[in-house]
Amino acid sequence: MKNILIIGAGRSSTACINYCLSQAKKNGWFITVADASPELAEKRINGHPNGRSAWLDVNKKNDRKDLISRQDIVVSLLPAHLHLMVATDCIQLKKHLVTASYVSHEMYRLGDEARDASLIFMGEMGLDPGIDHMSAMKLLNEIRAKGGKISSFKSYAGGLIAPESDDNPWHYKFTWNPRNVVLAGQGTAQFYEGGKYKYIPYSRLFKEYHLVDVPGMGEYEAYANRDSLLYREIYGVEGIPNILRATLRHRGFCDAWHALVKIGLTDGSYPIHDADKITYHEWMNAYLPEGNGSVKERMAAFLGEEINSSVMKKLDWLGLFRKKKINLSQATPALILERLLLDKWTLKTKDKDMIIMQHEIEYELDGKRKLVKSSMVMKGNDSIDTAMSRLVGLPLGIFVKLIIEGRITTTGVNIPVMEEVYNPVLEELEEYGVEFKETEIDLD
Amino acid sequence: MKNILIIGAGRSSTACINYCLSQAKKNGWFITVADASPELAEKRINGHPNGRSAWLDVNKKNDRKDLISRQDIVVSLLPAHLHLMVATDCIQLKKHLVTASYVSHEMYRLGDEARDASLIFMGEMGLDPGIDHMSAMKLLNEIRAKGGKISSFKSYAGGLIAPESDDNPWHYKFTWNPRNVVLAGQGTAQFYEGGKYKYIPYSRLFKEYHLVDVPGMGEYEAYANRDSLLYREIYGVEGIPNILRATLRHRGFCDAWHALVKIGLTDGSYPIHDADKITYHEWMNAYLPEGNGSVKERMAAFLGEEINSSVMKKLDWLGLFRKKKINLSQATPALILERLLLDKWTLKTKDKDMIIMQHEIEYELDGKRKLVKSSMVMKGNDSIDTAMSRLVGLPLGIFVKLIIEGRITTTGVNIPVMEEVYNPVLEELEEYGVEFKETEIDLD
Repeated sequence: MKNILIIGAGRSSTACINYCLSQAKKNGWFITVADASPELAEKRINGHPNGRSAWLDVNKKNDRKDLISRQDIVVSLLPAHLHLMVATDCIQLKKHLVTASYVSHEMYRLGDEARDASLIFMGEMGLDPGIDHMSAMKLLNEIRAKGGKISSFKSYAGGLIAPESDDNPWHYKFTWNPRNVVLAGQGTAQFYEGGKYKYIPYSRLFKEYHLVDVPGMGEYEAYANRDSLLYREIYGVEGIPNILRATLRHRGFCDAWHALVKIGLTDGSYPIHDADKITYHEWMNAYLPEGNGSVKERMAAFLGEEINSSVMKKLDWLGLFRKKKINLSQATPALILERLLLDKWTLKTKDKDMIIMQHEIEYELDGKRKLVKSSMVMKGNDSIDTAMSRLVGLPLGIFVKLIIEGRITTTGVNIPVMEEVYNPVLEELEEYGVEFKETEIDLD
Repeated sequence: MKNILIIGAGRSSTACINYCLSQAKKNGWFITVADASPELAEKRINGHPNGRSAWLDVNKKNDRKDLISRQDIVVSLLPAHLHLMVATDCIQLKKHLVTASYVSHEMYRLGDEARDASLIFMGEMGLDPGIDHMSAMKLLNEIRAKGGKISSFKSYAGGLIAPESDDNPWHYKFTWNPRNVVLAGQGTAQFYEGGKYKYIPYSRLFKEYHLVDVPGMGEYEAYANRDSLLYREIYGVEGIPNILRATLRHRGFCDAWHALVKIGLTDGSYPIHDADKITYHEWMNAYLPEGNGSVKERMAAFLGEEINSSVMKKLDWLGLFRKKKINLSQATPALILERLLLDKWTLKTKDKDMIIMQHEIEYELDGKRKLVKSSMVMKGNDSIDTAMSRLVGLPLGIFVKLIIEGRITTTGVNIPVMEEVYNPVLEELEEYGVEFKETEIDLD
């Protein structure tokens, strides 16, 4: 019997735990779900005979090591900064480790030790990062294998609301960490275009979006990610002239979000005075010079919008001009906005989310220029069984199975860009409806 | 004989050291100038019989304490973060301390100990902060003394180039730390207007400047400081509806600086790729989407400027569109800009700088609303004897004299807002040509 420890029983753990439990009986696995809340862990196990819950305060070293020592594989769903403790234990106790988080520099430094112990520490094994790496590498390697010369790599992903559940003027609801949505894009986006580095500072990031056609779905807005160049080497695309990674939103989102950025509402660096006393209306007034006209009229003028423009309607719908108290003390603009959006952008019970991922690759083969698009669209069932949680959790579970089946020869600290990982994971994901559809057109 | 230690013999120390030396003989003072470079310290003393230089590595605790133990008063001209070490020694060895730097939280925490030891630790005793506090407090207290009810306090200051030395299209040269000029305003400016808090994010700070008339000098552009509200309590103006502190620039500066901000050139948070290989022309191209037209034409379109507008001429004059190599490796945009500006904005030997400071206070007295402006304009003699260095150094020296003369009863950690400080300091500053001229008009 193989023992699998899943640390963290939060909302994003469901799909991974369910997958592992579904495989447990036939494969002879035993799943331990550990959390600071044993009730939550118990709920995830839900009486399954091949599972048990464990109470774990992850900061208690002895408890942690005791639990890990009795496993074969550890899946850490902890917040990213806590993985390193677990990873250090795994080195010492010789256990494999799988996470869906970005691999930190500190984690990469454990690479030699993990390799020496013949262990696989796989990070970025979720959706984005995760499925994006796997599907991009598969496509890139297929084109390279047939002799294609790649000249452009663009990769898009968005966690969206499905059209049938889209009932607000922003065409957006939270399907992921709201704080990350509010702070998204801060810094300077960097990418590569026409063989040259390009930069877009945050202050104009949401204004300088472009449109992306997703076959069968229509057009979406895309704003550049900060990290387009991060995977150049690992994807083997260092030499090519166009590299972009970007985030997708429904039409109309970016212009309105740009208005929030321009006003100053996404800033998390200083507290608003008297945020516990003033109204949203007064808050908006605080960003405008004194003048004639209502706050809403002056805001429209400041933004260069008509009073009834689509952007102004979105701001209005959020209640930014309402004489209602904010009721938060010592809150930053970003926090006030996040709380306001939480009220407005929460999934209703029956709402379906939707993930779109699309890679666009231009290449030359036999003297002809081609563009291939590889697109994946997946919808959730409801506000609990979301496409987001499924697509983050399934790759983790599938990869655990690959390790147990002895199909992984790679050791050390890695992200899923190797064929022996992406091929079987993507293949099994198809059984769960995760399908990339390719369309190719000639560019000449 | 009184012993005065001045730590730091850098460029900004000249006026303070010269003042102290000039007072030394008649008052029986002995001045020790300590620096990591004994030659530089020696040069400042310049053979004066009442002075000597000392070699000091300020991080060497024993050397530092040995030197301080033999003094009566210490003036620290060190970088701000090094004052605290000196302050701790001064507590232990029972010496007074004077600096021109902002008083840090850590420094304020020494207040009780300094008071218990009957010591005065005076910070912010330069120009801005320094003369701004003293002149503002004098004016505010005079109005309050005659029964005036203050409704608006605005305070402006600028380190500028004198009109007779203004020979570039920006109407600006460096008379102070270039790095601080490049990074000025980052964050969010906060002030108080019409009884309400107001916020201006950095991305629109230089666009939302206003004009300030300085009697006899004409109009200047003013952009809000980040810290307008910092001194509300200490100035005793907490209750009044309008409080603003702002920075002055010659006409035309702010629109052009806003263009640099908008492009993204003042960002110090990430390095530009291949900054050692590319030209300024390529650097500008990196902020623009690919398209038709020259980089300069596309930049004009992006900024919403005519190709020959005043703003575009200023950018052109900096050489931002020249095919000349940047030649800096791993440099941030802010650093590249700073180095470029250093070439362009350096004072020539005979150039005169100019300091303008102006307070504008509205108040009501006997049912009548009045506006009083108190303005100070001072020019330097040349690029060494600048108004800036004089106005930073003289208050320090004068305050040392006040301590020695026993005219200071205040103890603890302070900034110069008390009458026993500002009256004699401002009075003696007048002998050096530092004169605030008042003009008053009726507003009704």
